[in-house]
Amino acid sequence: VSAFSVQQADTWTPNGLASAVVVIDVLRATTVIATALANGAARVIPVAEVTDAFALRERIGPATLLGGERRNQRVEGFDLGNSPAEYTPQRVAGATIVITTTNGTRAFARAQGSATRLYAAALINAGAVAERVSAETGSIVALCAGTEGRFSLEDWACAGAVALRCAERGVELDDAAIAAAELFRAHRSDLYALVASGEHAQLLARAGFADDVRDAAMLDRYDVVPFFDGEALKRLL
Amino acid sequence: VSAFSVQQADTWTPNGLASAVVVIDVLRATTVIATALANGAARVIPVAEVTDAFALRERIGPATLLGGERRNQRVEGFDLGNSPAEYTPQRVAGATIVITTTNGTRAFARAQGSATRLYAAALINAGAVAERVSAETGSIVALCAGTEGRFSLEDWACAGAVALRCAERGVELDDAAIAAAELFRAHRSDLYALVASGEHAQLLARAGFADDVRDAAMLDRYDVVPFFDGEALKRLL
Repeated sequence: VSAFSVQQADTWTPNGLASAVVVIDVLRATTVIATALANGAARVIPVAEVTDAFALRERIGPATLLGGERRNQRVEGFDLGNSPAEYTPQRVAGATIVITTTNGTRAFARAQGSATRLYAAALINAGAVAERVSAETGSIVALCAGTEGRFSLEDWACAGAVALRCAERGVELDDAAIAAAELFRAHRSDLYALVASGEHAQLLARAGFADDVRDAAMLDRYDVVPFFDGEALKRLL
Repeated sequence: VSAFSVQQADTWTPNGLASAVVVIDVLRATTVIATALANGAARVIPVAEVTDAFALRERIGPATLLGGERRNQRVEGFDLGNSPAEYTPQRVAGATIVITTTNGTRAFARAQGSATRLYAAALINAGAVAERVSAETGSIVALCAGTEGRFSLEDWACAGAVALRCAERGVELDDAAIAAAELFRAHRSDLYALVASGEHAQLLARAGFADDVRDAAMLDRYDVVPFFDGEALKRLL
């Protein structure tokens, strides 16, 4: 029987190597990543710093798209911000995208080296990721990026969405996973309201990104599993 | 407006002095403390180590009762274990009780010095504590003891019980408090089933303490607010 645990990225102390870690940053990194891959991006490379992103474009070539945010805003000189709606098929099909965000890419950095396989999940692809990771043997960790080190309601709800579907496939949940799964179950039909009540959603709404919150709350919109191959996130299958 | 936050004791990094910290260890330390005070104990002194308990009895006098557990069992030479049902009025009325438990007393140690006022809550007195702390101005922290440093479902549900009642009185909840409050709201009518599904409850049931889980899940059984005066927990009012 596999075991499913939910952890906060900033306080997680890996206890050995997990079979699978699912990085979750619903607002907005993993929603952007899932959208980009669903819309045909070839790969998404998460990097920690803005300077890393520019350096990587130098190396890979000028066709590389740079995306992400600092203080919620698109970085100067970047092609894309951190709104999922920007990552249209017209814009991203076939592209290599280098992305850097405040919380999400830090969570990826923490997860690397602590997991055999690394995935990215958001509410928009929680079902697809759950179907995939429930087939893993061993320990599965849902790693919530949070906001500046703090617990985020939307990441917790997404961890619950993945956990609940894994439990339905026989995976055993730890206490945090049960709590998250039960929260998701209770709010499955009004996920947008739940997400919108969170601190990060309210911050984004004030900054003019209310549509991003709506996009991020569309449960199972995409049947895409972002898988990290050691260098980039790619669509599985 | 006061702000309510939920934190895990082992990862909490206090950001300044909280107005009030509510220590929660439903299975079983704070349930025992609330029961003892509701049944007339004069004071309950939480200490970290078994040797501290014996030393304190030497100092205070032989009438002092020693209570608590190691590996879930009563400590040899102690008068009481860690089952709320042991703390009857016959046994504890008027008594000074020194208590040491694996997780709960560690949480008290962490909370001391980080809060202006320190309370203890369990599901059996969540309503009374909420009524009291919702009158606080400033920041309120529900500090979940957890189990050996891990998230505990029953502590989270109790934090949610306190948070929800505080929110009803106008206190603002952070994301973790919203998540906990919504879980409590969804399971208010079947709290025993929720608590019993947690890891710690299952461990206790296997160790022969299933009744303790049932006792711990009795929401608002007692109208008692355990308040730490710098030395001991006493009944407020």
